[in-house]
Amino acid sequence: MHENNAKFFMKDVQKRKDNRGLKIKEVGISDIFLPIFVSDKKNQKQQVIANIKASVGLSRAKKGVHMSRFLEIISKYQNFNFNNLSVYDLLQEIKNKLDSSLANIEISFMYFIEKIAPVSQKKFLMGYPCKIISRIFRNGKVSQELIVEIPVSSVCPCSKEISKIGAHNQRGVITIYVETASFIWLEELIEIAEKSASGVLYPILKRIDEKYVVEKMFNKPKFVEDTAREVALRLKKDKRIINFTVECTNYESIHNHNVYAKITSK
Amino acid sequence: MHENNAKFFMKDVQKRKDNRGLKIKEVGISDIFLPIFVSDKKNQKQQVIANIKASVGLSRAKKGVHMSRFLEIISKYQNFNFNNLSVYDLLQEIKNKLDSSLANIEISFMYFIEKIAPVSQKKFLMGYPCKIISRIFRNGKVSQELIVEIPVSSVCPCSKEISKIGAHNQRGVITIYVETASFIWLEELIEIAEKSASGVLYPILKRIDEKYVVEKMFNKPKFVEDTAREVALRLKKDKRIINFTVECTNYESIHNHNVYAKITSK
Amino acid sequence: MHENNAKFFMKDVQKRKDNRGLKIKEVGISDIFLPIFVSDKKNQKQQVIANIKASVGLSRAKKGVHMSRFLEIISKYQNFNFNNLSVYDLLQEIKNKLDSSLANIEISFMYFIEKIAPVSQKKFLMGYPCKIISRIFRNGKVSQELIVEIPVSSVCPCSKEISKIGAHNQRGVITIYVETASFIWLEELIEIAEKSASGVLYPILKRIDEKYVVEKMFNKPKFVEDTAREVALRLKKDKRIINFTVECTNYESIHNHNVYAKITSK
Amino acid sequence: MHENNAKFFMKDVQKRKDNRGLKIKEVGISDIFLPIFVSDKKNQKQQVIANIKASVGLSRAKKGVHMSRFLEIISKYQNFNFNNLSVYDLLQEIKNKLDSSLANIEISFMYFIEKIAPVSQKKFLMGYPCKIISRIFRNGKVSQELIVEIPVSSVCPCSKEISKIGAHNQRGVITIYVETASFIWLEELIEIAEKSASGVLYPILKRIDEKYVVEKMFNKPKFVEDTAREVALRLKKDKRIINFTVECTNYESIHNHNVYAKITSK
Repeated sequence: MHENNAKFFMKDVQKRKDNRGLKIKEVGISDIFLPIFVSDKKNQKQQVIANIKASVGLSRAKKGVHMSRFLEIISKYQNFNFNNLSVYDLLQEIKNKLDSSLANIEISFMYFIEKIAPVSQKKFLMGYPCKIISRIFRNGKVSQELIVEIPVSSVCPCSKEISKIGAHNQRGVITIYVETASFIWLEELIEIAEKSASGVLYPILKRIDEKYVVEKMFNKPKFVEDTAREVALRLKKDKRIINFTVECTNYESIHNHNVYAKITSK
Repeated sequence: MHENNAKFFMKDVQKRKDNRGLKIKEVGISDIFLPIFVSDKKNQKQQVIANIKASVGLSRAKKGVHMSRFLEIISKYQNFNFNNLSVYDLLQEIKNKLDSSLANIEISFMYFIEKIAPVSQKKFLMGYPCKIISRIFRNGKVSQELIVEIPVSSVCPCSKEISKIGAHNQRGVITIYVETASFIWLEELIEIAEKSASGVLYPILKRIDEKYVVEKMFNKPKFVEDTAREVALRLKKDKRIINFTVECTNYESIHNHNVYAKITSK
Repeated sequence: MHENNAKFFMKDVQKRKDNRGLKIKEVGISDIFLPIFVSDKKNQKQQVIANIKASVGLSRAKKGVHMSRFLEIISKYQNFNFNNLSVYDLLQEIKNKLDSSLANIEISFMYFIEKIAPVSQKKFLMGYPCKIISRIFRNGKVSQELIVEIPVSSVCPCSKEISKIGAHNQRGVITIYVETASFIWLEELIEIAEKSASGVLYPILKRIDEKYVVEKMFNKPKFVEDTAREVALRLKKDKRIINFTVECTNYESIHNHNVYAKITSK
Repeated sequence: MHENNAKFFMKDVQKRKDNRGLKIKEVGISDIFLPIFVSDKKNQKQQVIANIKASVGLSRAKKGVHMSRFLEIISKYQNFNFNNLSVYDLLQEIKNKLDSSLANIEISFMYFIEKIAPVSQKKFLMGYPCKIISRIFRNGKVSQELIVEIPVSSVCPCSKEISKIGAHNQRGVITIYVETASFIWLEELIEIAEKSASGVLYPILKRIDEKYVVEKMFNKPKFVEDTAREVALRLKKDKRIINFTVECTNYESIHNHNVYAKITSK
């Protein structure tokens, strides 16, 4: 049989009826890696390597979805400029072509920003893990979420007060989740986190920078609770943000475990 | 100064007032590794290596928590027999000693069950990643959650129908989340998942077992949607379960990405 | 003190003498993430996100290296076109600027190739984890290494022979390490692996493709030992390759563990 | 057909001749998880969860190995007391039952030691990732390797000298690889690493401990190069050690990348 005719004889198993009476909340694909473009405040757009998860809802009566369609649609968006609002276009197309009443997409990538050393002015890119989540619900409502992980440093205030010689400090990470109906730059969330921590991380630091950064960090000691609260205060003031969660984790230098604090707007 | 007297002069920074007006939803520790015991249906209890995350809520007025107390309390539970209900004791003690109105604990571990090859009867242990989550909320309510990951195999029904020579099959994982107010054995959730998949995985399979297992799997082809629905049907029938989510992922043998399906009871 | 003058007063601790009599084989930086370009057979060059590890040797007499110099040098190579030979330029500059007699660099990235479905001709990119390692040794010799991970599928020959209804098949990965003094395209190593496995993976497969791919795979059953041997035979024939290692791993669909085979040219 | 007779009719595909003329260096299984016992200096033996990788060599003439035998043999060693020498028994049995001239085994696990806070004397277990590797080569020689990862802290000497207010410090990890023909306690290697670093990590630290630990660490600033050299000096003095490698990595608190140093005895 000629392969090009084969499909006419092929059974479409996914299209069959299902009689178990259970709708499926999400059915789709995960771990699709693809270079795409995302909106960049300074350079308009930036090429990133995305890990994509996409799904639709499946009604009670249907047996399955045609998984290859997700990729056929996604492949058309390779030169698109993604941000928390524009991802909606891809989502809508998935919903329509997969004939569903709801659809979800998660796009994870490392986003790069140029960091400038505070004294020497040496430049180098630093990567921030980001995720854009977009959903259309059954009732027609849309939700747009942004998640950004910002590595920072912290100096322990307790440690600083009880000793004259030093204080333990360490790398940590601030994870910001925001739900929004408006456009937000990734750069804005990164700036909020970096302002709220004891210290900002830089790729290149010459000795004059290191002195500056370390002294600044020691003059701004913060518990993980403090950092979480300062990020939360800044997020609360932003009218574009509907809901947020901030989670701060410090990789304690005197322990092999972490401390963390989480604040949610709800 | 003699070290034992030092604490009388030490400032208690965490105890200070905070005036930012923000309560913290969770503040605590993560990545505490510790051998503990969990309830085992066959052998009463089983030693596992737990990764523990524990937290309390922090009211608006307080600056910080005393993180070392989490570990002091946890250390007393090393010979305790944990299960989805008994973890509550540890949680209560954390809530009280850290003087909070709410507390959370997550205990993750690999749990072992002896698997017997279906024909040769050869035995070997197989590990299942599990998590017990317990929370006390501000209103006094308690929530108990169990999460179990069950690796299984799947044969694609579409692939089987369109070809006479074979069908793609692959390893996958079923993740079951249940919220319950009653005691549930981990073994019960594992059994539900293994019954619902195309095939069960075994550590030792002699050739006579392999023939049996492969033929059984090919006689039970299932889409990821089918497996999710069959797990969901079984979970729905269990009166002890308040809410559940089931997520099935197949590591497709013909693709480098996965397909997944998720059903929730809500 | 004015910050710009600070460096004149700053002690250069790294430059001090060390009297422990021990040279250091590698000292440097790791987990530097950076977008760079690598040679692409079809499109000349391809932007990738690299994870870079770079180091030099340190002689007995020296206390330490100036770590910031690694990044200052790397930052100049952002628009460079990397391949297994051209990475040598960066390596040489590191060796010279860090005043060492040897230097090493490892550049890891996901490299994308367009895969075309065998019947429908649908196109989509697929990512292959790659690594380029380059070293200059004390005696002046250079070594250039390429590592590529190629995900493939396998059908078990034993399973196929003992059952008429089907055979277990699964995703697996072939890792090829080659040492070479000549230029090699990443595409060449990927092609060798894909020819040697039971089946090739594709991002998009319509039903007519799926039938074709599954039947082709079932007509080419291979143990992990077979795949390793066929890759090794092909690598042996290539005169540009000085040494190689091939490691094949199958994520068995009937087990929760893997099987693997490794062949080295030495 | 009765299943118990099935094997008499089953073809033994693995046993067939291979004519590609290539021996296989390692062929076996990986990611076998199993609770086993390892030698514990204080408590004689300790139950751990092992991840086991086992392999044999395969001669030119043979097509494949019978993978299930690895697990049948390993299952007999569940109550055995493993250490770098005793693992040899399991290895010998694998070599014999799989009819090979060489065999390899790698056993990875988290090993726990009770850490006592330096002032308050509070106790809690801390986990150290360990690996035991044992090999028998074609010429009859045996190699025994131990690998231990010890998390520690470091204070940067340069940072301390150029600023009066503080110095950056961070968590890091020291990885020790030793090849030995004699028995060595894991505790001995852990002690060597902890003595060589700026600071030791503890699970529980009360404020009086924190003051002590932080001051001790700041009085012992060390570059990653220093720590590597001090570990190497201690390993060199131990006559039981044939070869060693030490690799120290600091998760820099002022950067998002790491610095590392590696010394080998060869």
